[in-house]
Amino acid sequence: MDQRDPEPGAMRRALDLAAAIGDPGPATYPNPRVGCVLLGADGSVVGEGFHRGPGTPHAEVDALAHAGASARGATAVVTLEPCNHTGRTGPCAQALIDAGVARVVYAQADPNPVAAGGAATLKQAGIEVEQGLYAAEARDLNRVWTRAAELQRPFVTWKFATTLDGRSAAADGTSRWVSSRAARLDTHALRALSDTMLVGTNTVAVDDPALTVRDAEDRPLGVQPLRVVMGERDLPADRRIFADQAPSLHLRTRDPHEALAALWDRERRHVFLEGGPTLAAAFLAAGLVDEIVVYVAPFLLGAGRSAVADLEITTISDAFRPRVRSVDVLPATEEGEQPNVRFILEPQKEGH
Amino acid sequence: MDQRDPEPGAMRRALDLAAAIGDPGPATYPNPRVGCVLLGADGSVVGEGFHRGPGTPHAEVDALAHAGASARGATAVVTLEPCNHTGRTGPCAQALIDAGVARVVYAQADPNPVAAGGAATLKQAGIEVEQGLYAAEARDLNRVWTRAAELQRPFVTWKFATTLDGRSAAADGTSRWVSSRAARLDTHALRALSDTMLVGTNTVAVDDPALTVRDAEDRPLGVQPLRVVMGERDLPADRRIFADQAPSLHLRTRDPHEALAALWDRERRHVFLEGGPTLAAAFLAAGLVDEIVVYVAPFLLGAGRSAVADLEITTISDAFRPRVRSVDVLPATEEGEQPNVRFILEPQKEGH
Repeated sequence: MDQRDPEPGAMRRALDLAAAIGDPGPATYPNPRVGCVLLGADGSVVGEGFHRGPGTPHAEVDALAHAGASARGATAVVTLEPCNHTGRTGPCAQALIDAGVARVVYAQADPNPVAAGGAATLKQAGIEVEQGLYAAEARDLNRVWTRAAELQRPFVTWKFATTLDGRSAAADGTSRWVSSRAARLDTHALRALSDTMLVGTNTVAVDDPALTVRDAEDRPLGVQPLRVVMGERDLPADRRIFADQAPSLHLRTRDPHEALAALWDRERRHVFLEGGPTLAAAFLAAGLVDEIVVYVAPFLLGAGRSAVADLEITTISDAFRPRVRSVDVLPATEEGEQPNVRFILEPQKEGH
Repeated sequence: MDQRDPEPGAMRRALDLAAAIGDPGPATYPNPRVGCVLLGADGSVVGEGFHRGPGTPHAEVDALAHAGASARGATAVVTLEPCNHTGRTGPCAQALIDAGVARVVYAQADPNPVAAGGAATLKQAGIEVEQGLYAAEARDLNRVWTRAAELQRPFVTWKFATTLDGRSAAADGTSRWVSSRAARLDTHALRALSDTMLVGTNTVAVDDPALTVRDAEDRPLGVQPLRVVMGERDLPADRRIFADQAPSLHLRTRDPHEALAALWDRERRHVFLEGGPTLAAAFLAAGLVDEIVVYVAPFLLGAGRSAVADLEITTISDAFRPRVRSVDVLPATEEGEQPNVRFILEPQKEGH
């Protein structure tokens, strides 16, 4: 660590500590990943900490516990603005004040209006506060969580798989498999980053998916996203979504805004939308899709179920043209399969 | 060059000479690219030659002309079996015999039944003949020409562009542009490798494409593929395909077999099929598609013209699943555009 200015190195370390708990997902949400390093007056590290998920100490409190009395007069270098509210744990701003910290350097301002105000509280207590060091990196670390906090609703990832000619199933409804095994495994890895799986009642009635997240050996993960079906229709209790491998919920609404509000109230931060094209079109029309993941399988059906429903677009200049965040070839992993392509797209919103 | 065995080096040189004339295309077809190196008794090169296209000397004759009297007793190293028939020029086998060549080493056997027999003629004249050195490389050099010769019909490349949801135009018929500029330039580069553009009467009547091959500055190439429209319907003479920038032809048939036979008789070797989905489906159903080039543009229309017509597939296990020869991301080259993806696919034929 550079002794002339140890703070950038400490922030990098704090970011690494935060990332060390692994990907965000059902075990982490609704909380962000946060790391904290405490520097003594001579620039040496006197404590380190990070947040391990709901119900466990925040990063600052974890670092203070390790530092003990050495925290007095120290500089707290933390990836996110210290919180100012009492949730499952006490406010971090107060904990830093109580410990006698002299200076706080944080990367990302708290995007959540409910918790914001930590910096102001610290300043009022006479602590020197600085913001912005590695702010972009800190935001990237909690990309989805940050956007959800800004929007005050869950971030929505719409995923669909399609043939090269835009079909998700053949004319008789068969669809196993459109995607390659590599694409299906990749889907499970992305599902595991969310805390909520969402489909419509029609998908549950017709396709009866389990909606659990499984690993390459088809074993379910230890902590599963909440499985949600939305729609007013009654569903038979024997559907796989209601089996007890993972929690599930039937939201009796067809309105995407209402559904997301209900999920936000249940502290959901990242919805993985895998329902049929009609449900996806409703979310798109409502401007409630933040990210689209598309798997393209290089074969043709010529007819069958369309992967995307009517979007009320009639002319080419009105086409829905998202920005490509990434496009990747997923090589075939099994004999007889072909490479698939994964696009990750972001709707380009006017005025953003 | 290795003096102990100069023949492999000479064959590599012959392949390079053949490739030096540039890509195959309208200026080269119906002939293959061929190179020839003549080695004297001491292994030194006494002559080199290559074929420059229809009406010019074959590679062997070109090399013999450069070698003059030194050809006597020499070894001819040539990428393709010397021809045995009198076409626009005399048979090469006879020219090699007349020049007193002692040995002939060739890479690829002539796949064309009309011309085959050169090796037998050479052997009958007492010349030592060996085949197979770099045979795969020689075949790759003339991949399309070779396949056409084997099939005794033009090789067919079907090209289409699609949105991520399988549309080639919006509901009102507008389609400018589905593909990015990078994808459109790439299409022109691939068109330039063919000697024939093929569409149906409906495409000419409705879309009125020029079907010329143009460079990045939108200037037409010097030598253009033949522009062919097939179908029984009469067409107005003012259609752009009939303008005089390039030759054109109206084949009064709807039968893909008949159309390809007529084009083969006109010495066409590589058809670039850009007609609508109905014409493409007819070629697919007839088993007359050898290669499919697909450009995927990452946007959605939700409705509109399907990029692929009904293929009479009703269940997923009967899907048309070609082999992926290549899949490449074409980065955006213009502001506001998004990367497109190009798939090159090969139908997997039973028994091949």
